[in-house]
Amino acid sequence: MEKNAGNGSSYSQMLKVKTIDILSGKLIVILNKIDAKELGLLPLDRVEITNPRNKKTTNAVVDVTDSLTGEDEIGIFKDVQELLGVKDGAEVEVRPSGKPRSIEFIKAKLDGKSLNQEQLKCIIDDIASNRLSEVETTAFVSAIYMHGLDLEETVSMTKALIENGQKLEIADTLCVDKHSIGGTNGRATMIIVPIIAAAGYCIPKTSSRSITSASGTADAMEVLANVSLTLDEIRNVVKKTRGCIVWGGAVELAPADDKIIKIEYPLSLDPEGQVIASVMAKKASVGAKYVVIDLPIGPYVKIKSREKAELMALKFIEVGKKLGIRVEVVLTNGSEPSGRAFGPALEAKYALEILEGKFFDNLAQKSVELSGALLELVGDVPKGSGFEKALGILQSGKALEKMREIIRAQGGKINSSKEIEFAQFKTQIISQGSGEISSINVGLLNRIARMAGAPANKKAGVMLLVKNGEKVSNGQPLFEIYAENERKLYSAHNFAKNSPVIELQRIILEKFS
Amino acid sequence: MEKNAGNGSSYSQMLKVKTIDILSGKLIVILNKIDAKELGLLPLDRVEITNPRNKKTTNAVVDVTDSLTGEDEIGIFKDVQELLGVKDGAEVEVRPSGKPRSIEFIKAKLDGKSLNQEQLKCIIDDIASNRLSEVETTAFVSAIYMHGLDLEETVSMTKALIENGQKLEIADTLCVDKHSIGGTNGRATMIIVPIIAAAGYCIPKTSSRSITSASGTADAMEVLANVSLTLDEIRNVVKKTRGCIVWGGAVELAPADDKIIKIEYPLSLDPEGQVIASVMAKKASVGAKYVVIDLPIGPYVKIKSREKAELMALKFIEVGKKLGIRVEVVLTNGSEPSGRAFGPALEAKYALEILEGKFFDNLAQKSVELSGALLELVGDVPKGSGFEKALGILQSGKALEKMREIIRAQGGKINSSKEIEFAQFKTQIISQGSGEISSINVGLLNRIARMAGAPANKKAGVMLLVKNGEKVSNGQPLFEIYAENERKLYSAHNFAKNSPVIELQRIILEKFS
Repeated sequence: MEKNAGNGSSYSQMLKVKTIDILSGKLIVILNKIDAKELGLLPLDRVEITNPRNKKTTNAVVDVTDSLTGEDEIGIFKDVQELLGVKDGAEVEVRPSGKPRSIEFIKAKLDGKSLNQEQLKCIIDDIASNRLSEVETTAFVSAIYMHGLDLEETVSMTKALIENGQKLEIADTLCVDKHSIGGTNGRATMIIVPIIAAAGYCIPKTSSRSITSASGTADAMEVLANVSLTLDEIRNVVKKTRGCIVWGGAVELAPADDKIIKIEYPLSLDPEGQVIASVMAKKASVGAKYVVIDLPIGPYVKIKSREKAELMALKFIEVGKKLGIRVEVVLTNGSEPSGRAFGPALEAKYALEILEGKFFDNLAQKSVELSGALLELVGDVPKGSGFEKALGILQSGKALEKMREIIRAQGGKINSSKEIEFAQFKTQIISQGSGEISSINVGLLNRIARMAGAPANKKAGVMLLVKNGEKVSNGQPLFEIYAENERKLYSAHNFAKNSPVIELQRIILEKFS
Repeated sequence: MEKNAGNGSSYSQMLKVKTIDILSGKLIVILNKIDAKELGLLPLDRVEITNPRNKKTTNAVVDVTDSLTGEDEIGIFKDVQELLGVKDGAEVEVRPSGKPRSIEFIKAKLDGKSLNQEQLKCIIDDIASNRLSEVETTAFVSAIYMHGLDLEETVSMTKALIENGQKLEIADTLCVDKHSIGGTNGRATMIIVPIIAAAGYCIPKTSSRSITSASGTADAMEVLANVSLTLDEIRNVVKKTRGCIVWGGAVELAPADDKIIKIEYPLSLDPEGQVIASVMAKKASVGAKYVVIDLPIGPYVKIKSREKAELMALKFIEVGKKLGIRVEVVLTNGSEPSGRAFGPALEAKYALEILEGKFFDNLAQKSVELSGALLELVGDVPKGSGFEKALGILQSGKALEKMREIIRAQGGKINSSKEIEFAQFKTQIISQGSGEISSINVGLLNRIARMAGAPANKKAGVMLLVKNGEKVSNGQPLFEIYAENERKLYSAHNFAKNSPVIELQRIILEKFS
């Protein structure tokens, strides 16, 4: 293999556009291998493409195939076509161009060097604007996974994400926020937001949709109201009600972050520094000055050990200080489910019932604790009395009233939990023995809910009927499955029957003879 | 973000095929975002696709867009279409499938763990068969770049590459080989192969085409003969003549390696262990038992320091031992060009002239030294007399005769250097001062040759007229440019005039006043 210094970029070629009728979300063009050779280009090199008619120009990453018949053609995805305003069959000028500067910084990070603010900003900007290919972005994510980000880099990365994205900017009221890191199910957000907004603080909450669980907060809230709001619509809702619960994916608060998360997904990479930067950037972008972070610890959640959680907590607080955000991290028990519902409608109804005072379980407890922590952090109440204050707001019905306001402001019509229906195909899973419940596998419950149709079918899901430590007898129902159709009910039921979802305390674990 | 254990894979959907008329070289399918949600799939997840008519099935990586109009369609590149034997508009069954096992091993390597033979083989097989996406392959390359491959891993990786690829297997004669790591220009191979074959050894040389230089060995050899041979054709050539010089890219000796090299290119990643595994696998695949490795050291080549070269040399030898291959590594001076030609036809003619005995320069010297080292390694001659033996073969005309045999066996007609022509547009670069030449920038010469049209235009290139240390006077020609057309001649000339290609010794470097 022969490699040498950069290509001469003084030559170019006119190539005929062949449109490929899909939006790839990437700035990629496809060259015939003869043209690529002529231009001295290899796959993953860059070109500058100019439409001579309107002088519009863009950079793109090259892929090379031998399938575009004939020479002198360039395969262009719709994204690039739209940027250039060019028609199928028209000619464009194609010229080899250099690599973006950020590649040099990614290489430095791979080599174990620290990056400064400007370098991280350059990388983040290039990721956000598709100037880096997936290969290059993956190398960056791998580098920060393996070498880590130190505190200064984490702060720089956070600032780069903030500067790159849009901002909510609601100046007149004090803004606060909460965030839960990789938790179990449970829709604490739908209880905390109305409590805090009712207490007089601004809490513009952006939430995510489910990736692999039965429902994300955005999916559950969508049962009650519209969650795909523009930044302007969010501003209006928050001005009117002080709170909102919307889908973060609809607003580009940190577009680079969304691309990094996509890359991280197949290998389940989640470098700690990147997680912190990602969360803190989103909090800063909505203008939050006080933030409570819920860090659940347990076998089925992201953070498995207390030591790791404590280290992460300190970093969150430090990064917050550099951004002018007061952070309190609350380590919570993530070893059992919060609440009993799995699936958008089931979780929405469950949260509404708590707001309506129908019951007070561990999800309600956790929500009031976190709300109390936030009220103490802001200085609204003295240390130690936040819980009472938050509980009062919940029990008075003010939180319910606030939630109804938020729902209406987000274009929803639901007024009471009674209006929420579940899917009509239903079955129960029965205990095959008696004893005390020792563990409930949240991962499996989510999986069963998904097999039943959640979250695409909002009414599908699972309702747990028991809790950890409870004594159950043989034949007692353990949980219910609500499915979209009979086929899905059958497959979810079948899987549930044969999976160790709920385990009973056993004295004798195994016998050898 | 909500993540949980794997998707239930018991549900599937029938989707209508929409063919995308390009060969992507990757097993990718594109789903509408509604269908992706229904199936619980995210970008970079996997599906198993079955054609119900012929039961053909394949796995593919998912990308999600919202541009395929309507639900229930699946965008399929030609690669996948051909695998399934399915027509545009036909229905296929799509089912979420698990991740390949190799992902777990890549994650382990990212976490700094060592991989065993079986794990590396699993990764290599999945890369070769497109079961890993570019994101996952990049994470693997980044991991071995950052954590390195220890000796055992390098051996395992080499074996995995060998087992995954095809083999040449020419049993009857003793096979030897040579390899140059990231060197400067110069076509030593075209001189060494005929010398060694004339000495009675089998030397089936696979070479690369240029990536960013003016010519690779395969490009230069293509001026004389056909280089895109199948394995069977190579076997025939080697049986007839004992030698060959062919393009390695035409035979899949290590298909995973080609994909890894593609990924490494944009970030110029070349983890040492991977370079060693890549070279040694190719040598083992052609059945070489004795190999001389040329490791040039210098400012314009891959290896810049002697220390690094020595460490790499030891590893090459150790890996060779484990594979039953005797390796000798020769550290060579890579600080000046070998020979004076840049461009396929210029380099081919130059090498032929050496074989014809027209002159004996530093390229000839290096070629005879390396040939001698190989003859000593095999035990053909005692230590210290390899150079004499090789020189004898060159001077006797036997090497030239052998080269003519090889050219004919590879379907070529060229018999003498006189038959090789250069491009007709020609200009000279003249010295602007007088003095002794202190440095010649090979990178710039390659670049100028490329601007003139090389290697796509075989007759284009640069011929150096001076050498390092030579005294030149004002107005003396330094090098000639041969270009495909006047436009390219102009731009190459213009660039050459303004670049520090050849520097003269200066006593006074700069004056301040």
